[in-house]
Amino acid sequence: MTGTGPRNISIDELKKGVLTADRTALARAITLVESTRGDDQAAAEELVEALLPETGKSIRIGVTGIPGVGKSTFVEALGLYLAGEGRRVGVLAVDPSSVRTGGSILGDKTRMSELAAHKAAFIRPSPASGQLGGVAAHSREALLLLEAAGHDVILVETVGAGQSETDVASMVDCFLVLQLPGAGDELQGIKKGVLELADIVVVNKAEGENKKRATLAVRDLQAALQIITDSEAAWRPPVLMVSALERTGIAEVWNKVLEFEKTAKNNDLWDKKRAGQNIFWMWAAIEASLSADFKSNKRVKSRLETLNKGVRMGDVSALRAAQLLLADYLKK
Amino acid sequence: MTGTGPRNISIDELKKGVLTADRTALARAITLVESTRGDDQAAAEELVEALLPETGKSIRIGVTGIPGVGKSTFVEALGLYLAGEGRRVGVLAVDPSSVRTGGSILGDKTRMSELAAHKAAFIRPSPASGQLGGVAAHSREALLLLEAAGHDVILVETVGAGQSETDVASMVDCFLVLQLPGAGDELQGIKKGVLELADIVVVNKAEGENKKRATLAVRDLQAALQIITDSEAAWRPPVLMVSALERTGIAEVWNKVLEFEKTAKNNDLWDKKRAGQNIFWMWAAIEASLSADFKSNKRVKSRLETLNKGVRMGDVSALRAAQLLLADYLKK
Repeated sequence: MTGTGPRNISIDELKKGVLTADRTALARAITLVESTRGDDQAAAEELVEALLPETGKSIRIGVTGIPGVGKSTFVEALGLYLAGEGRRVGVLAVDPSSVRTGGSILGDKTRMSELAAHKAAFIRPSPASGQLGGVAAHSREALLLLEAAGHDVILVETVGAGQSETDVASMVDCFLVLQLPGAGDELQGIKKGVLELADIVVVNKAEGENKKRATLAVRDLQAALQIITDSEAAWRPPVLMVSALERTGIAEVWNKVLEFEKTAKNNDLWDKKRAGQNIFWMWAAIEASLSADFKSNKRVKSRLETLNKGVRMGDVSALRAAQLLLADYLKK
Repeated sequence: MTGTGPRNISIDELKKGVLTADRTALARAITLVESTRGDDQAAAEELVEALLPETGKSIRIGVTGIPGVGKSTFVEALGLYLAGEGRRVGVLAVDPSSVRTGGSILGDKTRMSELAAHKAAFIRPSPASGQLGGVAAHSREALLLLEAAGHDVILVETVGAGQSETDVASMVDCFLVLQLPGAGDELQGIKKGVLELADIVVVNKAEGENKKRATLAVRDLQAALQIITDSEAAWRPPVLMVSALERTGIAEVWNKVLEFEKTAKNNDLWDKKRAGQNIFWMWAAIEASLSADFKSNKRVKSRLETLNKGVRMGDVSALRAAQLLLADYLKK
């Protein structure tokens, strides 16, 4: 029995604890689904399976944006607004680069001290990197646990590195992309494709001297989105302006989320999206396992580095290397 | 021995034929790399491997755009321009929906009759769908054969459906996205993310009454690209205007391609991109094989439909279903 101790409590007790929104039980349950131990994983699946009928009732919101855009401040402002409206808010972070010992996003809860102290909110930092199936797969299970515990809005913050935006977009109903004030050339560092994942675009830091530049950014982003989105789509991403610091514009963001929900449900897109996401995560887990098994194969391992180099340099063809490695793998 | 007959000629003869740019040998060699027969595949890899030192010397250009944008007309216009400049041009098509018997893109060579008749050009329609590893993997091998045969520009046309844009973008040096004239709302049907794959954007059909609308489209696309691309990148996609029908603006497109090549080479991006693509295709082939093996497993097959349904409806968790299927698969 370790200090984090998810194993010295039965699945049934954990289930009851989660359903009654017991904070300790919920924290332990999430630790269990994040565990990389084989027996923990089996227990975690039993738990998630048992709680599945109680999941699916929240609005799941993803939040991304480049470092410095103010994601945590925004999440705290939105979370506090929702708590003030009588909602129960769960907050998760997905950071593929996180390590337990480092300063991962949300790892330092003081960054959201006011929300963390609120009894209607539950904040959970990112699981460690190197999880089987990826950090995001485990965060998605944690999301289900937060729903079972009765949180009716889940906010998932992504660090905006690697695959994290695509992963988070694949587990939420509504994806918010935060942008800095500025116009045209000044809007630097937008990762390719991220804006096209957005359901709602939010220009943050619209405060003080930045206000004028934020207005310009809204105008330019609206024009860009007109071009890059399908004019016949049921929903075209709007651009809003907020100051997470001064907590202005937050209610408007929330109203847009509700409008998005209404539109998606009216067009039969809400449930379809979730069904598609379920299948996506099943195959993602299967493919991750197959790939991990392949890469841990001794014969594959012993040749991979040489072949990798040969393929990279163009000395060995990609299909030839694939065939050689597959032959090694399938040899019993 | 079948009528297409790639087997009644030795690998060595095929190799010599390809290297001397013999059209019959080249066609046979491509048929071989497109074959789904196990012994053909082994022979195909031997051939590609033997020719590998002679590959890599062309400029590889991808062309995409929605149906009706005039991809084939554009490819023909660009191909003829290049042939006129003394270049040897290979043209490939990637159409994941293609079937041998249907009217796949380029399947009807009369659509590019002038280029097809040119002695400096070689046109090859899309291989059939249902190829192991996907249609694109085989097209990429065909691309290598065209290079070995001395073509110094390869144009790869994509149908713009499914994964085809991403696949083609992953096998070329420079990716052209074709757009229709029009502005703002009128630019319909752009698939999410496709514009962000572009190295060069080309507004086609800038002819007659369309000219004014094409000019507006160029202006709007330029503004949108300013917003969605990183201002610090070594290359920011320019927007050009052409009439493939009247063959105007084609030289300007080619000059931009050469400018792109120069910038990429100066920034050490050209070789790096190709090396990354080689690795991408190796893993794509491995993952496709692992996935095909998984899906063809009898035990997996017998449970997949039920579990798929359960996961889709939210009755079974994604990770639980994955674990059950993996257990079935790994059971010997």
